[in-house]
Amino acid sequence: MMRTATIATIADEVGVSVTTVSKVLNGRADVAPETRARVEASLERHRYRRRGKRQPTGSGQIDLVFHEFDSGWAMEIIRGVEAVAATAKIDVLLSQLGGQHRPPQRWLDGVLARRPLGVVFVLCHLTQPQRRQLERQRIPFVVVDTDSATSASVPTVGSNNWNGGLIAARHLLQLGHRRIAIISGPEDVLCSRARVAGFRSAHEEAGIPVDPELVRQGKFSASTGFEHGMALLSRPDRPTAVFAGSDTQAMGVLRAARRLGLDVPTDLSVIGYDDLPISAWTGPALTTVNQPLRDMAGTATRMLLDLAAGVEPPTSRIDLVTELVVRESTAPPPPGR
Amino acid sequence: MMRTATIATIADEVGVSVTTVSKVLNGRADVAPETRARVEASLERHRYRRRGKRQPTGSGQIDLVFHEFDSGWAMEIIRGVEAVAATAKIDVLLSQLGGQHRPPQRWLDGVLARRPLGVVFVLCHLTQPQRRQLERQRIPFVVVDTDSATSASVPTVGSNNWNGGLIAARHLLQLGHRRIAIISGPEDVLCSRARVAGFRSAHEEAGIPVDPELVRQGKFSASTGFEHGMALLSRPDRPTAVFAGSDTQAMGVLRAARRLGLDVPTDLSVIGYDDLPISAWTGPALTTVNQPLRDMAGTATRMLLDLAAGVEPPTSRIDLVTELVVRESTAPPPPGR
Repeated sequence: MMRTATIATIADEVGVSVTTVSKVLNGRADVAPETRARVEASLERHRYRRRGKRQPTGSGQIDLVFHEFDSGWAMEIIRGVEAVAATAKIDVLLSQLGGQHRPPQRWLDGVLARRPLGVVFVLCHLTQPQRRQLERQRIPFVVVDTDSATSASVPTVGSNNWNGGLIAARHLLQLGHRRIAIISGPEDVLCSRARVAGFRSAHEEAGIPVDPELVRQGKFSASTGFEHGMALLSRPDRPTAVFAGSDTQAMGVLRAARRLGLDVPTDLSVIGYDDLPISAWTGPALTTVNQPLRDMAGTATRMLLDLAAGVEPPTSRIDLVTELVVRESTAPPPPGR
Repeated sequence: MMRTATIATIADEVGVSVTTVSKVLNGRADVAPETRARVEASLERHRYRRRGKRQPTGSGQIDLVFHEFDSGWAMEIIRGVEAVAATAKIDVLLSQLGGQHRPPQRWLDGVLARRPLGVVFVLCHLTQPQRRQLERQRIPFVVVDTDSATSASVPTVGSNNWNGGLIAARHLLQLGHRRIAIISGPEDVLCSRARVAGFRSAHEEAGIPVDPELVRQGKFSASTGFEHGMALLSRPDRPTAVFAGSDTQAMGVLRAARRLGLDVPTDLSVIGYDDLPISAWTGPALTTVNQPLRDMAGTATRMLLDLAAGVEPPTSRIDLVTELVVRESTAPPPPGR
């Protein structure tokens, strides 16, 4: 019986007009907060979902939402989404949440009113009620998730971060490094933890302990890489290698090494993460872990367009493979260290 | 009398239905090419323009169109547009033309059908008939023009490229350099010519001739910088300084210098262009010309929103100022050169 709830049922139960229920569904602002809450609760109770063939208003458009724009990294994702969308003659609406990982309700209301074909979220996560709001209006969404934080039921495209950490550390261990530092991303970004776990696994394999002093955290920025790089490399027992959380962070480490007169890779090995186009042009060119951002974004977009066409994906989570790209910034440790 | 043309006048003159004229105006594909051409010609003859208050379909949206996505450069522009649009609660629709500087008619037809509040073009130029098509539908547009190629009547935001070339060359001449190479952008991008002209003016001021062998052209890419860098720096009479067309190109020159065992800035000075965030993190950090891309994009967006609101800008072309940012990649030439 629950499955037969209509807007009229809901309106009746709450004691408001059908128009009011409709306004709540469409994310309209002109409903009193208290009324809205009651309607939301009733919709939730009945697990209400829009019926029939969806008539998107903003047909031919998808939303692409970033938690924030980060130069090279975000551009790779934009490129991946745009390439698939353009082929499908779909327009891309771009926004960013000013560093927030949860979209504000104001933003979601805009989407509900606009009704795009679907939404690609990058490093953002919806609250459970927000998810339900999109689901009710049959607006599908896919998460490009470098941080594996999304629940299994949400269609997600990621990459194998644990493997990324593993192969980077294995490469350095095989070169003979024994004191390897890792700078990972912010605490609230789970991908960093997966990479640190992979890094630890490689050490366990090799029977080499990880010095907790050499495990650092911070933003994926060049200045974070520089600050941690200066602190790590100024130590008397400085590491002979640093595995950074991003290519941008690695550029900060390279700068710290230059500042301290350490030659990369003779005195210090550095590994980046992402394999952004720029990483081939740093001095020296970065050895890095390829995270296939463009492919991840393209795969997510194709998954979204399938969902919008009513095709359920065969699996709700796809992790693309990460690979080591060896360039010039890694070498055996200096003799005697 | 010409000013009173209506859709009915046009339909009558061409001998087609009002619906057909309307379809042509709205960029619809289902009109025979020959009919479309005749309707276009009549609209043109009558200087037809949509009347009354515009009713945008995709209200609350603007289009941002790039000729192509170039990592750091495009991201700065996206950030500038997004910041202003978000404040005005306007959505941004993003597209790129795959390297074309002129939008294909297919793209324009999409815009005519969608009717955004306006369009920001980045390094793209409309043909005269395309301009007329947008004007007829009262869809305003603004060009973010790093290449000064747009005619005076089109609202444009650029920067002073001639000054950029002048101040970069003056800086190197004042340091004592006498053989300075310049790598400029592609031939079809006029900004490069303006910068070369500024570069020449600084040489004239100083009474130093410019060796035509040291004036190069190419894409704004790292690989172009590397190729020209290798060619220039392998010459027996190699230059003591290189002024690149972009920071990305400059990274290619830095790589060529490293490859040839030349220290920057001791053996060679390098200047970039743009002042992208990355330029503070190259090895060595780049001396560069700041082209205020974010401000240019923000200014263009504000101008567009004014136009959409019926406010004519006080001037149709705004050039923001370019400034030299001195970092680590420039120094006096090596003794005896």
